[in-house]
Amino acid sequence: MQTLASNPTFIAYAVSILVLSANLLFLWAYSGGVRGKTKTTPNVEDSRRGAKLVEGEPPEVARVLRAHKNAMANIVPFAILGLVYVLAGGSAMVAAVVFGVFTLARLAHTFAYLGGKQPWRTIWFVTGGLATLALMGFIVKTLVVA
Amino acid sequence: MQTLASNPTFIAYAVSILVLSANLLFLWAYSGGVRGKTKTTPNVEDSRRGAKLVEGEPPEVARVLRAHKNAMANIVPFAILGLVYVLAGGSAMVAAVVFGVFTLARLAHTFAYLGGKQPWRTIWFVTGGLATLALMGFIVKTLVVA
Amino acid sequence: MQTLASNPTFIAYAVSILVLSANLLFLWAYSGGVRGKTKTTPNVEDSRRGAKLVEGEPPEVARVLRAHKNAMANIVPFAILGLVYVLAGGSAMVAAVVFGVFTLARLAHTFAYLGGKQPWRTIWFVTGGLATLALMGFIVKTLVVA
Repeated sequence: MQTLASNPTFIAYAVSILVLSANLLFLWAYSGGVRGKTKTTPNVEDSRRGAKLVEGEPPEVARVLRAHKNAMANIVPFAILGLVYVLAGGSAMVAAVVFGVFTLARLAHTFAYLGGKQPWRTIWFVTGGLATLALMGFIVKTLVVA
Repeated sequence: MQTLASNPTFIAYAVSILVLSANLLFLWAYSGGVRGKTKTTPNVEDSRRGAKLVEGEPPEVARVLRAHKNAMANIVPFAILGLVYVLAGGSAMVAAVVFGVFTLARLAHTFAYLGGKQPWRTIWFVTGGLATLALMGFIVKTLVVA
Repeated sequence: MQTLASNPTFIAYAVSILVLSANLLFLWAYSGGVRGKTKTTPNVEDSRRGAKLVEGEPPEVARVLRAHKNAMANIVPFAILGLVYVLAGGSAMVAAVVFGVFTLARLAHTFAYLGGKQPWRTIWFVTGGLATLALMGFIVKTLVVA
């Protein structure tokens, strides 16, 4: 089997996925860190070690989890669609632009969500959504032309 | 590198993923639209712009989010398993049937969940689950035969 | 197109994904099973069939859903990164070790979460996270060397 390691569309994908995965993993770990500072836990086995057992999440934890949920809901479809585009033989130029815009928009969305910055949170969410729709269009075009 | 653009198993996968991604993105965007109509928000920065700050989600938003969560929980493993099947050199005929049944079942599940239609919601959920189990079986068979 | 069915890095990936997908699907189905035993439901259409309509989830259901959420948050990035490593032409030896450690750590995490076993839950979570970081490092190395 040949690898895709010298395929520039794949390189663009791999770089985006490294950044987007780091974004997802950071948000998940950060939600645990923020929860730790509140000294609360939803798990009875952790309450034995000093944290207070609570049913809901404290507001600051809930915010990080909403940012994570938003990231999952948007990054996961994009990641799968991006791979379809790579495997369909998509253009490296298109990939660099569309993957790049999406990745930057999602990083900016994470910062805007954690910092409570509006209208930026909405602007970056919509930008990521438009990049995803563009990618879907480019997939269709690539498959129809092929 | 050769592309998969002329591989019929991959085409079946790509079409399914376009539909399933649209399903996921619609549910996510729709949850935001439904929340907008309730004029509520979980984010203090949005409450400054007129929406009422609430801790839980209103019931109509919670329903859309449950449908989205169910879609993520089922579509994500299927999407990754489907790609494994494509890359393992799986049969286009099997892919067309299994991917087609799963995709239609998940679309139907979304409508049944949003409309509160039972026993249809359960029927389509189980259909999607059986298609996923079938796909896992076909992956094993393809790898063992190879 | 050549398949990857005889590529040992891909085989390691496929086996891990079969196990990890089964883990995710089990947790999701199990949350439904546990909810059934509590005779509660968040859906009004199910309450017509005997289950009691509740807003939050009973504690035993909430635990399974937290385990599922943790699994999704960790397995999904790993699954996409793992495929990038396979397609980049990554080493079968590295894949066997890193995918193997991650998969075993996540299975153990699921059991530790459902059983409320600490510090095991944290130990297996951290092990899975370190395997993911190692995989990201190996992807970078593979792409830079190529």
